[in-house]
Amino acid sequence: MREIFHRELEELGDHLVEMGKQVAAAIAKAGQAMREADLQLAEEVIDDDNRIDDLEDHIEQMSLIMLARQQPVATDLRLVVSAIRLSATLERMGDLARHVALVARSRYPQQASSGPMFDTLTEMSLVAEDIATMLVDLMVNHDLELVHRIATRDDSLDALLRQTFELLLVQNVELSRQEVVDAVLLSRFLERLGDHCVSGAKRVGYLVTGDLDASFLLRDDEPDSRHS
Amino acid sequence: MREIFHRELEELGDHLVEMGKQVAAAIAKAGQAMREADLQLAEEVIDDDNRIDDLEDHIEQMSLIMLARQQPVATDLRLVVSAIRLSATLERMGDLARHVALVARSRYPQQASSGPMFDTLTEMSLVAEDIATMLVDLMVNHDLELVHRIATRDDSLDALLRQTFELLLVQNVELSRQEVVDAVLLSRFLERLGDHCVSGAKRVGYLVTGDLDASFLLRDDEPDSRHS
Repeated sequence: MREIFHRELEELGDHLVEMGKQVAAAIAKAGQAMREADLQLAEEVIDDDNRIDDLEDHIEQMSLIMLARQQPVATDLRLVVSAIRLSATLERMGDLARHVALVARSRYPQQASSGPMFDTLTEMSLVAEDIATMLVDLMVNHDLELVHRIATRDDSLDALLRQTFELLLVQNVELSRQEVVDAVLLSRFLERLGDHCVSGAKRVGYLVTGDLDASFLLRDDEPDSRHS
Repeated sequence: MREIFHRELEELGDHLVEMGKQVAAAIAKAGQAMREADLQLAEEVIDDDNRIDDLEDHIEQMSLIMLARQQPVATDLRLVVSAIRLSATLERMGDLARHVALVARSRYPQQASSGPMFDTLTEMSLVAEDIATMLVDLMVNHDLELVHRIATRDDSLDALLRQTFELLLVQNVELSRQEVVDAVLLSRFLERLGDHCVSGAKRVGYLVTGDLDASFLLRDDEPDSRHS
């Protein structure tokens, strides 16, 4: 019985990692679509989001069946419940990548931004891509040092978000109204992506350590997505 | 054993309803703070969000203990897992109310918008408040008719969101850049609130009927938050 359970648990983990990889790929593609006004890449991200949603449903259904049939306790139970939560976080990340791609598509053949705002959004998209890759790495290797590093990179994403507001409201850089609207949305989507990565990383930390707060893994008191 | 479980399940339901009520109150207060530039209400929403977050942690911990000790199957298992998911949705709704309050606070003593944009945002905040109240009602009474009604009201929220973009980009209404930024953020937060209500309502529908899609309860094919 336990052997079956552990085989299923491994399979569940494989599905999660697969989902994480698809999400990280969507984030990378959406960022590139935004930077390069690449319509085909944007369409790919938008079309492929269904596959990510299906993976979430599959993971939840599989988890429920495992809970019912194997009735795990302690660490095993924590693993299964964490899988459900982590898949929800990954699904939201997929949505956000899709949102970025939708903006890129709606501006095509133009780029969604210009000047210093374009540079800041470009950097945000690269950091988001980087953080998502680290999250997948953390899911595969359980290297808790990555929880720190994800939180640190997310701090720089927050700083870049503040920079977009500085450009918009203090420097009052020249942008069309459409560009202002897009900059507000894109910077928000990218910043939220970082928050979800931190939240996902905390979840993996919890999964590995059993501490729901896993706050010792992070550098300050309130780094997760719940307050942003 | 089953008697204990059902007592605990009732308690879990009570916590969820309590959380729903606090979230609905936060949404109502945040909307009023936005409409009336009421600093004290905005502060209340911002301060009280921690209590909502604590309720989510409590519900998750309680669910895990119930899963481990009572090892529920079938409907009972579905109820406990749905409680975990629903509490996550409610927590996100609390966050969004907090975001609305943060914008209201940062614009105080001014209102966050003016003219026809103010009117549209006002209506969005009232619809969001209405939908959240319906979700709590659904959680208490399991009246599945409310799933329909929540989806319908969410459609009007989506229409109002399109109206904000019409005002911003087609009618090009006169607004300061700060007002443009705030309008994009506020309309997005309020529209997301509606999406989460639909997602929460689907979750309650699943809980009651056992159909994860619960799509027969909704009017179109893709109404949940996953694609918005």
